[in-house]
Amino acid sequence: MAKINSHYQKLQASYLFSEIAKRVRAFSAANPAAQIIRLGIGDVVLPLPPPIVDAMKAAADEMGRRETFKGYGPEQGYDFLLAAVAADYARQGATVAADEIFVSDGSKCDTGNIQELFAVDNVVAITDPVYPVYVDTNVMAGRTDAADAKGRYGRLVYLPTTAENGFDPPLPEGRVDLIYLCSPNNPTGTVLSRASLTRWVEYARAHEAVILFDAAYEAFIREAGNLHSIYEVPGARQVAIEFRSLSKTAGFTGTRCAFTVIPKELQARNDKGEMVALHALWNRRHTTKFNGVSYPIQKAAEAAFLPAGRAAIEANIAYYMENARLIREGMTRAGYTVYGGVNAPYIWLKVPGGLTSWAFFDRLLGEANVVGTPGSGFGSCGEGYFRLSAFGLRENVQEAMARVQAKLSL
Amino acid sequence: MAKINSHYQKLQASYLFSEIAKRVRAFSAANPAAQIIRLGIGDVVLPLPPPIVDAMKAAADEMGRRETFKGYGPEQGYDFLLAAVAADYARQGATVAADEIFVSDGSKCDTGNIQELFAVDNVVAITDPVYPVYVDTNVMAGRTDAADAKGRYGRLVYLPTTAENGFDPPLPEGRVDLIYLCSPNNPTGTVLSRASLTRWVEYARAHEAVILFDAAYEAFIREAGNLHSIYEVPGARQVAIEFRSLSKTAGFTGTRCAFTVIPKELQARNDKGEMVALHALWNRRHTTKFNGVSYPIQKAAEAAFLPAGRAAIEANIAYYMENARLIREGMTRAGYTVYGGVNAPYIWLKVPGGLTSWAFFDRLLGEANVVGTPGSGFGSCGEGYFRLSAFGLRENVQEAMARVQAKLSL
Repeated sequence: MAKINSHYQKLQASYLFSEIAKRVRAFSAANPAAQIIRLGIGDVVLPLPPPIVDAMKAAADEMGRRETFKGYGPEQGYDFLLAAVAADYARQGATVAADEIFVSDGSKCDTGNIQELFAVDNVVAITDPVYPVYVDTNVMAGRTDAADAKGRYGRLVYLPTTAENGFDPPLPEGRVDLIYLCSPNNPTGTVLSRASLTRWVEYARAHEAVILFDAAYEAFIREAGNLHSIYEVPGARQVAIEFRSLSKTAGFTGTRCAFTVIPKELQARNDKGEMVALHALWNRRHTTKFNGVSYPIQKAAEAAFLPAGRAAIEANIAYYMENARLIREGMTRAGYTVYGGVNAPYIWLKVPGGLTSWAFFDRLLGEANVVGTPGSGFGSCGEGYFRLSAFGLRENVQEAMARVQAKLSL
Repeated sequence: MAKINSHYQKLQASYLFSEIAKRVRAFSAANPAAQIIRLGIGDVVLPLPPPIVDAMKAAADEMGRRETFKGYGPEQGYDFLLAAVAADYARQGATVAADEIFVSDGSKCDTGNIQELFAVDNVVAITDPVYPVYVDTNVMAGRTDAADAKGRYGRLVYLPTTAENGFDPPLPEGRVDLIYLCSPNNPTGTVLSRASLTRWVEYARAHEAVILFDAAYEAFIREAGNLHSIYEVPGARQVAIEFRSLSKTAGFTGTRCAFTVIPKELQARNDKGEMVALHALWNRRHTTKFNGVSYPIQKAAEAAFLPAGRAAIEANIAYYMENARLIREGMTRAGYTVYGGVNAPYIWLKVPGGLTSWAFFDRLLGEANVVGTPGSGFGSCGEGYFRLSAFGLRENVQEAMARVQAKLSL
């Protein structure tokens, strides 16, 4: 008699984006003339730049000729892409060897799969608010108890990350073994300072914890002095795994390429108390459960690291960050308190007048016909906050800000 | 203190293909003039046909224009591809709805990930010999004890599948909950008959077991009367998950696209004994840990189901199956006993003279300079067998057979 993994039944309905879609549908049906502007989901809108498209097409042609056809590639990624990524790390001042990089089809997959390397009884810490994948994949694996009335899962350690603490999560009080950090942060749009990341690395070294560092938005950092990689912190290679993605950086949300770095020094203990290298474990997982990223996609990804491609994606990032500035300044001018949006493509705003996040969602949709994301969808500490995404077309962002100023100024 | 998933340390070294590579390297170094022919690994060699390349390039161009750019797609796959796959099932006489299909980047991933839906204490049955991914992913998840001297993991149920039983694995004697079947089979190249598959479906229905049916090679079936899908068996929709892949079918080993079917009727019990639909669980896993296949790759996959693409891949399959015929007949003429190769691209031969699989590997390499795969690499019941792959160029297959007949005739 086959039995299901009953941990799945602890999962709460993942209703954030479906509920948003439902409310938008209902509003549209009732107000067919309304021109709705979507600044909700964090999905890119600018097309892939020509050097990336050209690389993909050239690789497709290679796949069509016997002499250049590629069958199975190395599961870890082709050397040309590993070398390009390693060079990018070197440029940023972080030491990462090509054979410490594992190319994949997305950071969602990687941040979701990484927990498989660890025992079920590890204690997991996450920030609150948080990207839900870190939580849900640990629920599925049985590292939590059921959720309470606030939606918080038992045994998970939640680190409040709010305006009160400057979006700098406190070190945990009790024991934690695995720590998910994301900087620049989704959803708050804030970055962790060098001092903060240094404190986390020191904590992990002292407690033999492992940091799972999501750097998916590092390319959006505009201000010098912020860290792009956790490996810029001395000693981080012994305690941290880093995830990066081309999704937002290079407009690859529909093209799919990302990578994970596991330094060879990084170890954790087995059930006999011996230290074991995580690199070998991830390599085993990667080669057993994954077959590498499509060759034309890897060639497209490589192009994003070469001069012409890099310049083009930098221009796209600058476009989005100009949107972020317009949103930040527009909302400020309308009287709102905003965070983030300087080194990240998300603006996190304080919902005015003691409204809930969902009440503000309805007001923004109803009065300005603008869609955003309720902060409470990212965790109970996100209640009273609201996320606006800079991934829109310029004219829509400008129009959205004009409407907010006209109709929802405080 | 972070602790690793110690189940990983039960895994035996995955040394089959690395050991093959090592022995070939050593032989080449000692015999630099030898022209080695590789009929070992099951990787395709013919290029992607023009309709598929063109579809990929057209989609790359779409990604380069703002009006047609695609960001995140549905994790389950685009409707155009789901519809094409559903139509293909209908053509084969199996009922599969578009929303029962989950597009992925490979059957290795899918057959590796599917076990996550099930409780750790399910008893898993596999055939022996077997595709190692089914085994290793269950070891990693903790469904086995350590391996014994023969390399067999405790708690796993091995179903011998040999010439003695006509490669028709016996029903298990004790309880089993999850059953991996692969037909046409890798590595034996044989197919399970309608009667055999019917017996398995009846067993699963009687015992509330779930069949994990790997149909990656269904397109290679040449003889009418063989089943392409387990859903051709009445009642299979209540008990079976099916995996298919474009890797071998359409030459996608380096392009990456596959899919999994979970019928909506398929259920298993939770820890309270209630029946739960597996479709919803897999949908949750798929949307939480996966972000969909690259849009240009899905367009390329769709092209493989459209008339021009289908005709081209059928021609490629016919080419490989002509290779299979040449190998089968060539080895038979040289005095070997061979199996498979009629409805599958693998020929499974009995190693002559009581040699081990590896001893025959060395002899074939040393005397004919031909590389194959030792059957013992697929499980202890594969000892004394040897796999030759039909995925080669015609001239190499012909030359390999000429050498075997000249130097290794029995």
